Amino acid sequence: MKVYEINEKVLKYRFGNPIKTDAVLMEGLEIKKSKIDYFEVIEGNTVIFKYKMSLEDIILGLGENLRGINKRGGIYESFCTDNPRHTPDVKSLYGAHNFIIIDGREKFGIFVDYPSKVVFDIGFTNRDYLQIEVSDNNFDFYIIKGDSSKEIVKTFLKLIGQSYVPPKWAFGFQQSRWSYKTADEIEEIAKKFIENDIPCDAIYLDIDYMEDFKDFTVSKERFPNFKKFVEDMRTKGFRLIPIIDAGVKIEEGYDIYEEGIEKGLFCTDEKGNPFVGAVWPGRVHFPDFLNPVARKWFGLKYKKLVDFGIEGFWNDMNEPAIFYSDRGLDKAIKKAEESESKNLDIYTFFDLRDEFINLSNNIDDYKSFYHKIDGKIVNHYKVHNLYGYNMTRAAAEGLEEISPNKRFLLFSRASYIGMHRYAGIWTGDNYSWWEHLLLNIKMMPSINMCGFLYSGADTGGFGGNANAELIIRWSQFSVFTPLFRNHSALGTRNQEPFAFDENTTKILRNIIRLRYALIPYIYSEFMKAVKDGGVYFSPLVFEYDDDISRRVEDQLLVGESIMVAPIYQENSKWRYVWLPEDMLLWKVRDYTDRNFEIINKGHNYINVELDEIPIFIRKDKMIIIGKHGKNVESIKNTKLDVLAFIENKCLYVYYDDDGKTCDYKDGKYDEIHIYIEKVKDDFKIEIDNRGNKDVKLINFYIVSTNGKIIKKKVEIN
Amino acid sequence: MKVYEINEKVLKYRFGNPIKTDAVLMEGLEIKKSKIDYFEVIEGNTVIFKYKMSLEDIILGLGENLRGINKRGGIYESFCTDNPRHTPDVKSLYGAHNFIIIDGREKFGIFVDYPSKVVFDIGFTNRDYLQIEVSDNNFDFYIIKGDSSKEIVKTFLKLIGQSYVPPKWAFGFQQSRWSYKTADEIEEIAKKFIENDIPCDAIYLDIDYMEDFKDFTVSKERFPNFKKFVEDMRTKGFRLIPIIDAGVKIEEGYDIYEEGIEKGLFCTDEKGNPFVGAVWPGRVHFPDFLNPVARKWFGLKYKKLVDFGIEGFWNDMNEPAIFYSDRGLDKAIKKAEESESKNLDIYTFFDLRDEFINLSNNIDDYKSFYHKIDGKIVNHYKVHNLYGYNMTRAAAEGLEEISPNKRFLLFSRASYIGMHRYAGIWTGDNYSWWEHLLLNIKMMPSINMCGFLYSGADTGGFGGNANAELIIRWSQFSVFTPLFRNHSALGTRNQEPFAFDENTTKILRNIIRLRYALIPYIYSEFMKAVKDGGVYFSPLVFEYDDDISRRVEDQLLVGESIMVAPIYQENSKWRYVWLPEDMLLWKVRDYTDRNFEIINKGHNYINVELDEIPIFIRKDKMIIIGKHGKNVESIKNTKLDVLAFIENKCLYVYYDDDGKTCDYKDGKYDEIHIYIEKVKDDFKIEIDNRGNKDVKLINFYIVSTNGKIIKKKVEIN
Repeated sequence: MKVYEINEKVLKYRFGNPIKTDAVLMEGLEIKKSKIDYFEVIEGNTVIFKYKMSLEDIILGLGENLRGINKRGGIYESFCTDNPRHTPDVKSLYGAHNFIIIDGREKFGIFVDYPSKVVFDIGFTNRDYLQIEVSDNNFDFYIIKGDSSKEIVKTFLKLIGQSYVPPKWAFGFQQSRWSYKTADEIEEIAKKFIENDIPCDAIYLDIDYMEDFKDFTVSKERFPNFKKFVEDMRTKGFRLIPIIDAGVKIEEGYDIYEEGIEKGLFCTDEKGNPFVGAVWPGRVHFPDFLNPVARKWFGLKYKKLVDFGIEGFWNDMNEPAIFYSDRGLDKAIKKAEESESKNLDIYTFFDLRDEFINLSNNIDDYKSFYHKIDGKIVNHYKVHNLYGYNMTRAAAEGLEEISPNKRFLLFSRASYIGMHRYAGIWTGDNYSWWEHLLLNIKMMPSINMCGFLYSGADTGGFGGNANAELIIRWSQFSVFTPLFRNHSALGTRNQEPFAFDENTTKILRNIIRLRYALIPYIYSEFMKAVKDGGVYFSPLVFEYDDDISRRVEDQLLVGESIMVAPIYQENSKWRYVWLPEDMLLWKVRDYTDRNFEIINKGHNYINVELDEIPIFIRKDKMIIIGKHGKNVESIKNTKLDVLAFIENKCLYVYYDDDGKTCDYKDGKYDEIHIYIEKVKDDFKIEIDNRGNKDVKLINFYIVSTNGKIIKKKVEIN
Repeated sequence: MKVYEINEKVLKYRFGNPIKTDAVLMEGLEIKKSKIDYFEVIEGNTVIFKYKMSLEDIILGLGENLRGINKRGGIYESFCTDNPRHTPDVKSLYGAHNFIIIDGREKFGIFVDYPSKVVFDIGFTNRDYLQIEVSDNNFDFYIIKGDSSKEIVKTFLKLIGQSYVPPKWAFGFQQSRWSYKTADEIEEIAKKFIENDIPCDAIYLDIDYMEDFKDFTVSKERFPNFKKFVEDMRTKGFRLIPIIDAGVKIEEGYDIYEEGIEKGLFCTDEKGNPFVGAVWPGRVHFPDFLNPVARKWFGLKYKKLVDFGIEGFWNDMNEPAIFYSDRGLDKAIKKAEESESKNLDIYTFFDLRDEFINLSNNIDDYKSFYHKIDGKIVNHYKVHNLYGYNMTRAAAEGLEEISPNKRFLLFSRASYIGMHRYAGIWTGDNYSWWEHLLLNIKMMPSINMCGFLYSGADTGGFGGNANAELIIRWSQFSVFTPLFRNHSALGTRNQEPFAFDENTTKILRNIIRLRYALIPYIYSEFMKAVKDGGVYFSPLVFEYDDDISRRVEDQLLVGESIMVAPIYQENSKWRYVWLPEDMLLWKVRDYTDRNFEIINKGHNYINVELDEIPIFIRKDKMIIIGKHGKNVESIKNTKLDVLAFIENKCLYVYYDDDGKTCDYKDGKYDEIHIYIEKVKDDFKIEIDNRGNKDVKLINFYIVSTNGKIIKKKVEIN
């Protein structure tokens, strides 16, 4: 073991000779140290780290994972997995995010930089022990110290580098469904948005837009003039977002397949032949995204769609999902044949059935193919969690080369820390279960802690059938997620905002309009989190260290000013809310309403009708509200509203930029610094406009902690 | 349609010529009436009933089902189904309980007496409509009027007759696991209960006790002298509860099989040959329990085990579960063969895989066999929900003939209303999910409303792995369920009360001892519910009609005096509780503790440590506490404690009987009427002993609503 000091807060413990993941950007200086802090370490072919937790410890982090914000009590396996039924016993989802924080007697963070299976047993086997098992003895183990969870996260985010930023239009509402199949069908959807006067920025193309599920093709039959169609839709206000899958169809004459074969850019089997798996297109090869040559080659293929006018992509099936391999299917079929006309004993029958059930995403398949990394052949299993990451990196690097400095919308299903610099993630194939709305709420801050700021769930649930109430309640939460996409699966009930009764459409229209009106705040908070290396969603414990805030699992802080307490139970028109301090409750039906109520610190039971969203504005904080439009680009916020809840004073920085380029990285953005201070019975307002050219007027609605409301208008130079 | 008046509250609408289910015991007189109250009715091959719900309506009932106490928002299909993964989208569980209550603008109950598929769409498709679709036009539809949900339930329970009563020892703790395989293994479990000084009344024999899964056999290898073993275990204090499955193994020389064939007592296929399905024993025939001759024949077979000293049974796999049929398996294998060495397109692959996945409990199988009912051949699908019911009725009627007047423990997985007169139910193969603990809480009152009073879930969860905290929290709820059984599946983590760390064992010991100490109350309340045709578990709305009590989904009333507010979330040592009136909180660590706290009406946030059970005693109510022992029979409560919370006065009836026979039906039971009345600063106590010969002394701990505690001792004559 070698030990490196990255900075005064962070030590890296290097075991063996790890494969480079590029998760961490900072190198350290080797120091003399022989023992790891906090942990008992058991070294062998695997390495086990044991930590005795104290009773008050909460454990945060682990990104995209099941269970609570506090991960205590569970067992988690980092191994990117395509499993659409996220029942509470599932240990692995699509991402592998090995960052956790211990917050209690001691406060420190851990990042295990290892790209295959890592098991976190957080008091599951033994209530008092945190045990991390790395299935190898070549990896980096980081310990990050800090005085609070929030500080530890900031230190960690600095370590792994600045998060991906999508174009501003990607903060608009997005509509998806597997599968809008034809240009006509998509036009029909767009028409309904227009007719119903519901804002929308993007419509998704799931797998059926392709010709036989071949990447970078577009069905000529279903999209006869795709370029024109993309243009027409843009004119109407909608961007189209095609899916790209990891597997490349094996088909003579298909250029991607032929080039990949010719250049040797696919993963290989143990004999060195391209590995065959089956996914949507049937039998496919998998590009070796861990090879920079393959990455570059694949990344530049996105140009085919960019040339049609496409400005956003979602990379899917990149765990990689494998429905079956020839190896597995042959074995299963052979077993079936052997069973013919036999009186099977029941365990033999289950073996046979399970052989078919377990064909998909089979570990034996993952162990039977190989990558070429720096000239060395490496078994896929050993680097499994880097696959989706590097597919998406390929896309990001390709798009940067195709259209330098342009921001594309890009997110991925599979991920590993490091990929957050290249794209966002969505939380995969959830279900239309109320439990998954709650899971979505709990997951967002954990995902943020791992660097993925642009994220959201399939609003309303992907699998299964949603009822109107679920869509409404879920949308009311998604108002706050950077990615706000309604997405559902083939064969399920339609769940577009206009798919239910008239009253539901009306409620959803208001919810989506609120989202657009909140973009000035959401975008400001998102961009400041990116720039400052912070998070957008936080658990209450990041700001409040009282005993109850440490426990709260169903309320979140959104940016610096808002606390949300979503309704996530059916038939509920009420909920309990913990207020760690007095806050201003804005129960929003229509974002132009200005009805406020001060709610006192403590436990509160609040009524929330189906069409209401409770937004809590923290003390000495403000939010900014703009207006809605048919899409993000159509909105020019010359006038903003500030809603503030002031005891003493508050400074808010309203951030904006061109929304399209990466110039913000070079400091090209504008800010309005808005300062409110209580002065006797009035409020002093100071505005410092640092370059914003749009805003001409700000309307202030300031609620004092004593309940007094003061309205002011301030013109902006 | 013919209309019958059963009594002034109940009308029966008869459609066509229904198959007799024996669910309802009362006949009515035909009256002239042409229209059904409340509903719009659409008649065809199926019959649809539509009711426009008002906003304030809550919908209760539906027995063993997913979702909330308030069933609004969901869609439910009554069709007994063996599906161990009760995810939130599952529409059918093991029981078919077609009783619902509409409580709102109008108040009435509905019972659909039809033994095949009935769909209840309770505002799922259209938020405002309740729609019931009966998949036939031959059935009875009952409308039950009443002034409150509680009254409607009482009227309904009178209609369907008095519930099954188990022996008193069945209120003790019971330990189960699939599968304790050998006599030695069971002795080891028993030994651990004794060593750890944890009370236990019964240990279960899951499928592995049998010889090749053949009903009414016992493996000679694993249980060399079963009769003696049963005796020895009884001496140690444990009863053994074997499982009986519905399917009879096809095996020459196996008497049950041969007799069934000879007498023609199995269900037949379309050619009249015994139908073949495969379950645990491999290929089986299914006894035709709908034929009284088969029922009598099978019921008397229980004598084989009764003769070994067995006093309790659980009937399983009686939906009936069918793992596969020859028809289905041959089809699947053929499909597999046809797929060999083909480059399957992916939908063809899914078809193949699904063919194997869907082999189990396939509707086509259910449609391919037949019963003989009153000389007529009836397709199984048409009477599916009567199968488990009549298997269990066979057992109950058999046991009554084998040992007249003796109470046996008997419960079933599949059920239909009517079966509640013969046996209890357990809630089937749940999971070690916190969500299933909550589901268990919500399900209990609904199951009670449908007549099943003796019921409980697999404490700790059947499938999946539980951690110590889940077992503790779940056991803390199961303390109150009449059936309190810890049960888990093969291959999962052991979850007996001593399977975790020492502290967990200690906590579970105290929980289980509390259960035994509460048996005087639990048994009294259970038996009074049986005698009076009421429920044991109620939702708050049965007693409190305030707006909030109508909404509460996670608190229950247990009998007349207790409100429970279980902890059902991981890492929670607190929860919110709604108190519709002031109550006395007894936070129990050890049942001999006498620490009380008055909690005021309103919303409360209470702390609950892992080893604490919050028991709320209602105002002007009392509970009685006895003591624990190694099992129920070993306890003779000569001394009881009364804990009371009194503002004015309270009468409590402590019920007891021999616990073994059905003599209670003839009025052979004893009662102690305990009356407490506040008189100035003191309490007057009156005792009227109506035949109890055990109790000699009662210690009173009376807490006045003003907080004053008065202790008294009263000797009993």
